[in-house]
Amino acid sequence: HLEENMDKSNTVTCTAPVNIAVIKYWGKRDEELILPINSSLSVTLHQDQLKTTTTVATSRSFQEDRIWLNGKEEDITHPRLQSCLREIRRLARKRSNDGDPALDSTCLSHKVHICSVNNFPTAAGLASSAAGFACLVYTLARVFGVEGELSAIARQGSGSACRSMYGGFVQWIMGQKDDGKDSLAQQVEPETHWPELRVLVLVASAERKPVGSTSGMQTSVQTSCLLKHRAESVVPGRMAEMIEAVRRKDFAAFAELTMKDSNQFHATCLDTYPPIFYLNSVSQQVINLVHRYNRHYGETRLAYTFDAGPNAVIYTLQQHVPEFVQAVEHFFPPETNRGQFITGLPVNRVALSEELKQAVGLEPMPKGISYIISTKAGPGPRVVEDPTQHLLGSDGLPKKTV
Amino acid sequence: HLEENMDKSNTVTCTAPVNIAVIKYWGKRDEELILPINSSLSVTLHQDQLKTTTTVATSRSFQEDRIWLNGKEEDITHPRLQSCLREIRRLARKRSNDGDPALDSTCLSHKVHICSVNNFPTAAGLASSAAGFACLVYTLARVFGVEGELSAIARQGSGSACRSMYGGFVQWIMGQKDDGKDSLAQQVEPETHWPELRVLVLVASAERKPVGSTSGMQTSVQTSCLLKHRAESVVPGRMAEMIEAVRRKDFAAFAELTMKDSNQFHATCLDTYPPIFYLNSVSQQVINLVHRYNRHYGETRLAYTFDAGPNAVIYTLQQHVPEFVQAVEHFFPPETNRGQFITGLPVNRVALSEELKQAVGLEPMPKGISYIISTKAGPGPRVVEDPTQHLLGSDGLPKKTV
Repeated sequence: HLEENMDKSNTVTCTAPVNIAVIKYWGKRDEELILPINSSLSVTLHQDQLKTTTTVATSRSFQEDRIWLNGKEEDITHPRLQSCLREIRRLARKRSNDGDPALDSTCLSHKVHICSVNNFPTAAGLASSAAGFACLVYTLARVFGVEGELSAIARQGSGSACRSMYGGFVQWIMGQKDDGKDSLAQQVEPETHWPELRVLVLVASAERKPVGSTSGMQTSVQTSCLLKHRAESVVPGRMAEMIEAVRRKDFAAFAELTMKDSNQFHATCLDTYPPIFYLNSVSQQVINLVHRYNRHYGETRLAYTFDAGPNAVIYTLQQHVPEFVQAVEHFFPPETNRGQFITGLPVNRVALSEELKQAVGLEPMPKGISYIISTKAGPGPRVVEDPTQHLLGSDGLPKKTV
Repeated sequence: HLEENMDKSNTVTCTAPVNIAVIKYWGKRDEELILPINSSLSVTLHQDQLKTTTTVATSRSFQEDRIWLNGKEEDITHPRLQSCLREIRRLARKRSNDGDPALDSTCLSHKVHICSVNNFPTAAGLASSAAGFACLVYTLARVFGVEGELSAIARQGSGSACRSMYGGFVQWIMGQKDDGKDSLAQQVEPETHWPELRVLVLVASAERKPVGSTSGMQTSVQTSCLLKHRAESVVPGRMAEMIEAVRRKDFAAFAELTMKDSNQFHATCLDTYPPIFYLNSVSQQVINLVHRYNRHYGETRLAYTFDAGPNAVIYTLQQHVPEFVQAVEHFFPPETNRGQFITGLPVNRVALSEELKQAVGLEPMPKGISYIISTKAGPGPRVVEDPTQHLLGSDGLPKKTV
């Protein structure tokens, strides 16, 4: 009955979302604990389009901790993985020592098997580590019966993972303490707060791999005088303004601050020595398209933001999605048909006015964007109740379908 | 004998150089007087390669002030032209009133004809306004017998023109006064100070016209929080460091500061709202080439700097020029032969090592750079003594050959 027992009580599967920052995190004050030099704020994306699924199993029969990511076994000794495992086990032990009767402490001595998959290609250039570590920590916590604030643990896996522990609009408060106990994520508003808000991920045709964010932000902290100024003197005011814009659902204020903060983050990358470029010519064209589109309508209907790569994420309101998607198809003519060019929430086809085309006046860049993911804000991590969805079989190894 | 008389006494021809800033000027605190928000420092380029030539004539017979630029008559009422004309005439009148016996004050009541040409194509994207206004002011001063500090007048034509009033290494001290009297250029070292220093202008294949510097810096001053910080808190220290590096002829210090300051200027352009992009994919490739070249040799042998356009200006020492030019030819394969690809000071052909090619490891960008101008630091404005070089004929109109 060992296998049956393991399946029922010691295997848990959860999902967790991707998040896209509108006030950017760039730079750590503590590399080990992953403590940032400024607070940040993000929108959690809906898991119907983008999610990580993770199964964790514990068993007396497991010889060692093991992990499989997207079908491939990876090194479990990775320091950030170890941080998360260690912290969850520490909390579980603490509860057990405190004598919590609800806790089955037997699994504390067991090894874990972890299996995790994304429902989106790594090539999409979305920071999968945020969803991945959020999902890992959320699932481990369920397995070991740990409750309460988990974002500080997810943060030690990947900084921005702490924001994926909540749905909707989430701030990561930088905190002041040296031990990082006050460097936590907090929901500003749930995903239901602003139902008209839409998110379009414009996946740029991948070129080479850009500088990774971990080493990039290290070099920025060491060499950019502008980054220090941004973190200390610009971001605090912007956090307050952004929270206010989200609360009031003031799209123009939200959008302008989002664009300015994305630009300032990339400005600090350029002020890094040697400079780091994440924006390529496709990104520049998207930026120009958005500003000219907004100018044409005399109001801010679209916002762009870019992380450590060339993909644009566009925030807009539901009613503007069909025309903007058409504009993207016009200015970045794809090689595929529309069915392959846009995935996710369905988008109606509309005609593009000649006035808009002329007002934008950009030279089309064929194949600059490979596809669009259409989505919206969504909830935080969830437990998957259906045991047939476990990624690990009763033998504790990844199922063949993974 | 009227015509002959005009030719001898009232026609003056001068030349003036281009300068390339290594600590950048970006942002005015007074638009009218052209007072900058920070000091800047530049290298004056040699006029054998790049210069403006200007002839100014005065005559009782001229009906009005007129100007011809590169063969085409332009609007003399342009406010900045008028500022320079007014200031020179005001100084001339002052000297005349002070009773200077050397001054022939008859021409003060005369109208002027101005004719100016560049020996380099406008398409080279070099800021021709600096050489142009420096030459205009220098020539007008000779015609009207004005002596002394002229950089404050050139500054009112185009900010960076004040630095073209001197040869070698020149600082533009921002000054503090509201009337701009203390916002002047000053020579830090003459062009003979550092004879090994070489300058390569890498002319990028022109795409569209970027945002002009006048409106660009206005938008930056209005919208970039990073620019304000740069001007107030970063540049003062960099000016002192740069002057010291020039004095010591410390190429590594000079080069690193030059690159950092170029990057920071472009970072403030990206922090402008809407953002301004002057660096395109060719510029980014040049930046990567320079850093990888330096890294390969374990020393800073090259520096890049970019103004308000995609052209790179490279500073290096004489002994490194042949190899670097060969590297540019390799990584930006031109469509022309070498004779058309490199102009100016001759450059020997050398072989490029496989190690260097591999260490750089960039994908070649065919035709990314259209040609290279090879030059060095040079002297300030000069009077052309040979009257056959006048650009205006004895009739006061541009000669047919202009």
